[in-house]
Formats: sequence, structure tokens, C-alpha cells
Amino acid sequence: MSLYKDLKQECYEANMQLNELGLVIYTFGNVSAVDRENGVFAIKPSGVPYEDLKPEDIVILDFDNNVVEGKMRPSSDTKTHAYLYKNWKNIGGIAHTHATYSVAWAQSQLDIPIFGTTHADHLTEDIPCAAPMRDDLIEGNYEHNTGIQILECFKEKNISYEEVPMVLLGNHGPFTWGKTAAKAVYHSKVLEAVAEMAYLTLQINPKAPRLKDSLIKKHYERKHGKDAYYGQN
Amino acid sequence: MSLYKDLKQECYEANMQLNELGLVIYTFGNVSAVDRENGVFAIKPSGVPYEDLKPEDIVILDFDNNVVEGKMRPSSDTKTHAYLYKNWKNIGGIAHTHATYSVAWAQSQLDIPIFGTTHADHLTEDIPCAAPMRDDLIEGNYEHNTGIQILECFKEKNISYEEVPMVLLGNHGPFTWGKTAAKAVYHSKVLEAVAEMAYLTLQINPKAPRLKDSLIKKHYERKHGKDAYYGQN
Amino acid sequence: MSLYKDLKQECYEANMQLNELGLVIYTFGNVSAVDRENGVFAIKPSGVPYEDLKPEDIVILDFDNNVVEGKMRPSSDTKTHAYLYKNWKNIGGIAHTHATYSVAWAQSQLDIPIFGTTHADHLTEDIPCAAPMRDDLIEGNYEHNTGIQILECFKEKNISYEEVPMVLLGNHGPFTWGKTAAKAVYHSKVLEAVAEMAYLTLQINPKAPRLKDSLIKKHYERKHGKDAYYGQN
Amino acid sequence: MSLYKDLKQECYEANMQLNELGLVIYTFGNVSAVDRENGVFAIKPSGVPYEDLKPEDIVILDFDNNVVEGKMRPSSDTKTHAYLYKNWKNIGGIAHTHATYSVAWAQSQLDIPIFGTTHADHLTEDIPCAAPMRDDLIEGNYEHNTGIQILECFKEKNISYEEVPMVLLGNHGPFTWGKTAAKAVYHSKVLEAVAEMAYLTLQINPKAPRLKDSLIKKHYERKHGKDAYYGQN
Repeated sequence: MSLYKDLKQECYEANMQLNELGLVIYTFGNVSAVDRENGVFAIKPSGVPYEDLKPEDIVILDFDNNVVEGKMRPSSDTKTHAYLYKNWKNIGGIAHTHATYSVAWAQSQLDIPIFGTTHADHLTEDIPCAAPMRDDLIEGNYEHNTGIQILECFKEKNISYEEVPMVLLGNHGPFTWGKTAAKAVYHSKVLEAVAEMAYLTLQINPKAPRLKDSLIKKHYERKHGKDAYYGQN
Repeated sequence: MSLYKDLKQECYEANMQLNELGLVIYTFGNVSAVDRENGVFAIKPSGVPYEDLKPEDIVILDFDNNVVEGKMRPSSDTKTHAYLYKNWKNIGGIAHTHATYSVAWAQSQLDIPIFGTTHADHLTEDIPCAAPMRDDLIEGNYEHNTGIQILECFKEKNISYEEVPMVLLGNHGPFTWGKTAAKAVYHSKVLEAVAEMAYLTLQINPKAPRLKDSLIKKHYERKHGKDAYYGQN
Repeated sequence: MSLYKDLKQECYEANMQLNELGLVIYTFGNVSAVDRENGVFAIKPSGVPYEDLKPEDIVILDFDNNVVEGKMRPSSDTKTHAYLYKNWKNIGGIAHTHATYSVAWAQSQLDIPIFGTTHADHLTEDIPCAAPMRDDLIEGNYEHNTGIQILECFKEKNISYEEVPMVLLGNHGPFTWGKTAAKAVYHSKVLEAVAEMAYLTLQINPKAPRLKDSLIKKHYERKHGKDAYYGQN
Repeated sequence: MSLYKDLKQECYEANMQLNELGLVIYTFGNVSAVDRENGVFAIKPSGVPYEDLKPEDIVILDFDNNVVEGKMRPSSDTKTHAYLYKNWKNIGGIAHTHATYSVAWAQSQLDIPIFGTTHADHLTEDIPCAAPMRDDLIEGNYEHNTGIQILECFKEKNISYEEVPMVLLGNHGPFTWGKTAAKAVYHSKVLEAVAEMAYLTLQINPKAPRLKDSLIKKHYERKHGKDAYYGQN
């Protein structure tokens, strides 16, 4: 029996959640879950429709993209997941989708401005949109380089992956992450909702102001600060 | 057995309704219901997903925010509800959501103009958008001050909470109320529908005129005037 | 037993269809069905939610708005239906909704231009938007005068109710009709789809040209002309 | 028993899929499937609602539009399907819809620009919009001429039907095709998603740049090139 039965189950459930939340059609997305102790992660097999997916189809790989367990070819985006797990020690799950409003912002090559408290409840920065990849990187190890592109974006903008659990890849779409695979999917859904609200806001009022700093801080602190009073813990 | 079993049930059902009407994702909303005789209200516990919510989880508080019954932490917006119940004697329920079109208008910091009879069937004024909170109020007792912010908005605009059962908080989202918790939820849904229609109207015709006064009055009177002839009572 | 059992059933089913097609929320709509032989029509009672509606609740009236059968108060829009039945001898059913895109165009006070064959498959004219009612008519018998307003609009624009089975009332919303109540509901759904497509067309290309006459004629003729070859009859 | 039972079943299932994917309302669409060996194709009967459709209703015709089997009148668009099958030897199925965003672009008479990798994963060109039909062709054999119009469009733009499995007919709507009827439906859904994303992209950023050539090539190659590594084959 597999050592990674629970990990596969976690990964499977998070992938199915992506589908149930209306964030993907067909096979346009994938979620992975990490096992830090064993230095491996579980990811959706490539091109398998959600209605056919079974927990035992999930592929296990190490952070250098060697398949540890599984008979199917892993997601074509696997190397991006591996690169992020290798470099960002505190994430437990990663999700990638082609959700409509998130993709529209990515195609617009614009950061999503922080317009309200729905956004500030989750992060205090504009949602970053990484510039389209440089041609020399595209020619090379594309999905690996996508990971490099994400890290460079966070370095340039001087933001932390622990505080900003999401990014838009210019002309492509969103990657999100979190402490668990389920939390990564949660961030994909939040991003899609915030992306739609920001789009509508600019349609109604092209001069809509950014949320002021005092409100950004207040909403984030009440959910995530040391005296947080949101939720049951 | 709880004194407040019926109140909790009313509150529970109204919260579940919010979810069924598509007005919330995850835990992005809350509804409360008041018991005027006993000077208490029931509200959703903080951060509990709708699929896990049970009637016995509902928290009972007095209007000074003292927990009267319940083991869970109440909604982080509780003090806003308490302030409104304390000051507005004729409301029986309050709802708060982050519904998409309502939030988009709130983030636009614009009142929703009265463009048609769908709006006039429910209220005769533009739907007010309160200015974002002053920094000194944010630093203080934030959710309590949100209540103050709402009352100040109604005073400045010289409108009555009995005739205008809804408000947008700038950069945040909508609060709505009514004779019962169910009616508060109804007003959240009506607001969302009106917000979407007004958005589309301005996209189609940026110069669309406000509904004329004679039609505003006619539609409101036929539903709410002394000779109302809408409905069965 | 009621003489009008079948008529009530037809009316009931058409009303429920309005709800299932996503054209109404709460009680924001109504459908009627006529019995020409007996000079009566059946209509939804006022303010009754669709989930509570039963066939026996349907109200029967003559064309002068006298209740012939039924214990409930008929729809507040009843007099508009009666006026149209009285004046337009060849219609068998009427529907009224507050569907989102139809209302947005009505609030914009613009006719919906004929941009494509989806529109031309059903009618060869722009969908007319009647100007908001004159103040002297609003003061009077409002719903009766709404019928007058519709007929005046068709006269002014020189169009026929048999060829154009729908109208937008400025600042209000759509009325549609047909040979049967089910056909009236069908036209409400077609109108909503065409209204959404026309809205999107203008967003993508504000200079999008009207469909050319040769294509308007071709598409209408193949569905409704004397050599029609659409459908099974 | 019918020679074409399997072909009818394939055609039936693809038509039902069109409905389940939300690409059609009422009878606004049709799918066909070809049997190259026998030189026939199966197509939906005209004007039959999806809820009433049965596999045995499907009509079988040859490429000159002679009915080979079936009692019902075939889709009014049949001659367009026949023309495409006759001229494009490598397609196995064709789908036609009036899906919302696809129609909006067709009514706008604009090609859909390639803005991102969702598009490039499927084709490397802008999605072509054929000019509205010339008046002399409309007067003639309309649906046959629609086929001519599509082929002329591909010739003028110098694109291949094997690489670009979809087209918009100006003022009308989309036709899509593929190796099978199911694949044709898949392309209809992809087109609708890409059409919505492109629309939103231009609303957010009217100056959004076209995807650069290196990324177009990379994404297409990884899915369809000789060293493709997407999917399980």
C-alpha cells in the first residue's frame, strides 16, 4: 500500500474542489499538496478530466521533478510547483487555474488594485501581475522558468509570499498557495471574487480610489494580526 | 433548554438563505435577528462555513455586546449590529454581505441612482453610499464606529432607516435591514439585483436619466402607500 | 368544479416556467393566459412567491377587470394585461418580468438594435422601448394607461404586435406576448438573451453596424415566411 | 435495425452535451457527426427541444444533402455542415451555437485577438470573424453559401481548418469542428471561454497587447507539437 495515501487523498479533494467552485472547465487547472517530511508533493495527472479523476491517479514527485510514485504523466505545470516548494519552505499547497476574471486581469498585464475590504481581509498589497516571460526563458525550461519568473516578481516588488498568497502570470493566469492544498484553492476562489469586483469597480467609476492605508491595516489585522478577533481560534 | 431557541432558529434560517441566494461565498456575510422584549439579538458565529452551521451555534448578545448565551465567538461585525438595534427601534433583523455588484458600487464610492421601477418598488431614494470611515474612528472601536458611520450618513443625507432599508459602506459592502431577519436578507437580494441593473444601465447609456419623481412616487405608493394594492394584505 | 381548470393550469405552468428560466426573483413577474371563447383570462395572484403558487390560486377576470373566479387579489399589473387582450385580438398569452438585461435596456431608454441573426430569427425590427409615461397618465389609472402607452408606442413606430411580440417600457421593464402563455414566456427568454448579446456587442465594438436588410429578411423568412423550412411543421 | 445506430448515438450525445455545457437555449444550436466510410453524416432534426430529443430522431444525410435515413426534417443549417464535410476531409464533427460571448464578437464583426495562453493552448491565430455574406449569396442557396463563405474566409486569411478549428460568422455566430462531434463541442466551449476572457481583457485594458509570438508557439507546441508533453498520450 502507498506511503502517500493521505497525501494523494488531500490532493485529490483539493482538485475536485477547484471544479466544484466553478474555477475550471475541462482540465484547465491543477492543485498540488506537499509532504515536507518526506520531501515530496502530490499533483494532478496531466489532461485527466475531473469526472474521471481518482485518488490513485495522483502522481508523487520530489522537488527535482523525479516521479516517486504513480503511473500517469504529471501535470504539465509540475516543474513550476516543484520550484515553488523548493524555494518557499512554508507553503503546503499550490493551485493553478484559468478562472475567467483572474485570466482577464493577467491578460491585461495589470496588478489588481486593492479597492476594498474583501481584498484587505486577505492581503494588504495589490495582487501582483508578473510581466510576460523573457524570450530566453521561454526557449529554455519553460515551466521551471515560470517558477523563477514568480520569485523574481516578488523580489522586484519587495513582497513576501507569506503575506501575498497569489500571483497573476502576465498573459497566462493565476497561481495561488497556502498552508494546505485546500487553503491554496480557497485563495484561488478569493482571487477570482476580488478580480471580478475590481473589474466592476473600474467600469462603474474609472477614478475609484485605492483603499486607504488605515483601512487596509485595520481589516488585515482583525483577521491576521496578533489581536485578531475573526474566526473561532 | 434555551429561552432563545426560536430566535436562534430564525437567525440560522436567514443565514442559510443568504447562502442559498448566492449572496455569499465562504463566510463572507452574517445575519442577525432581534428579540425586542428581552433586549437581545442572535447572530452568526464568526468564521463558520455555512455547510457546518447549526442552529445551536448561533450566539445571543445584548445591545452592549455582552454574550448572553452561546459558546462560540460571535461575528466580527457584531458591534455594528448591536449599535443599529440600539438606535433604530423598529428593525427586527440585519444582514451584511460581500455580494459582487453591491461591493462594486461600494468600492466605487457612489450612491446607486434610482433608474427604474424595480428600485422604486422598494425605496424612493438613491441607495446611499457612506463615505469611508475617518481615520480617528478606524483607530478606535472599529465595528461600533461603523454603526456611528451609518447613522451619520443617514443624518447627513436626511433619509430615514424605515424608508431606506439599506446602505453601502464605502470600500466595504452593504448592510441591509427589515422587520425580520428574513426581510433583511430579502433587501440584500433586492439591493444586489438593483446594483447589477444600475451598473448595466450606465454601461449601455452613460447619460441614462434618473427615474422621474411622478413614477418613483407611483410605484412606491402602489406597494407601500395607504391605498397599496400589491400583494394579498 | 371550475370551468377554467385547464386555463388556470396553463397559466400556472407558464408562471412556473418564468421562474425556472431564471427570469424572475421573488415575485418580480407575472404571466396570463386567455380564453377567447369565454372572454376571460387567467393571471397570477399578486405577491405570491413561486414556491407557494398553486394552480387553484390563479385568478380569472374578464377584459374589464371584473373577477370571474378566484379568492386572491390578481397581479397589480392585471389592467395592462386586460387592455392588451381587449385590443389585440390575436394574442393568447402575456408575460411581464424584471429580467436583468431587459430592464437595463428599459432603464437606458433605448431601443435594442438588431445586431444579428439571433434577433432576426424572431423579429425584423429593433426591439422598441416605449418612452416613460406622461405625468397625467401616471396620475390616473396607471396600469390601464400602461396598456395605452404600449399601443401608442406601436402606433408611433408603425409596427405590428403580431410581428413584434415584445416591448420595453422605459424605466420599467419588458412585456412580451404570443399565441399562448408558453410562447409569451419564450419571447421573454429570447428578449433577455438578445438584450445581453446586444449589450456585449456595444461594449466590444461601439460602432457595430446594424444587421443588413437582406440578412434580416432571410433569417426571418426561413423561420416564419411562407416557404419556412425551420422546425418540423 | 439502422446501419447508423452508433453514429446517431454519437451525434445525439454531442447535441445533449451542447445543452449541458450551457452553450444553447431552446433549439439555438446543432451538432453533426460524420461517417467517412459510408459518406454520410448525422445531424439534429430542426427545432426539436433538447429535452425531447431522442437518438432515433437524428437524421442521416449524404454530402449532397439527400436524406438517407430519418423521418424528421434535418437542422436548417444542414447544408453548411454538408459543404464543410465535403471540402474538409479531416473533420469528424461540426457544432453550431448561439452562445452569448461568441455571438457578441460575431455581431461586433471583429476577430478575437490572441491575448493569452488559454487561447494559445488551442490555436495560434486570432479567431477569425468572416465578413457578413454578400447580398447575391444571401439571395441564393443561403446555408450552402454559408459554407462557401467560411472557406473563402480561411483562404483570404491564409489559415488552415486543421489548425484553426473555429470561425465566427459576422452577425450570426460560431461554427466549430474537430476529429469527432465531441471534439467539435469541446471547441465551442473553449471558444466561448476565450471570447469572454478577451471581452473582459479589453474592458480592463483597451490597450492590452497581443500575446507575443514566442509564448504563442511555446504553449501550442507543448500541447500539439511533436514533443508535446500535455495529457497522457
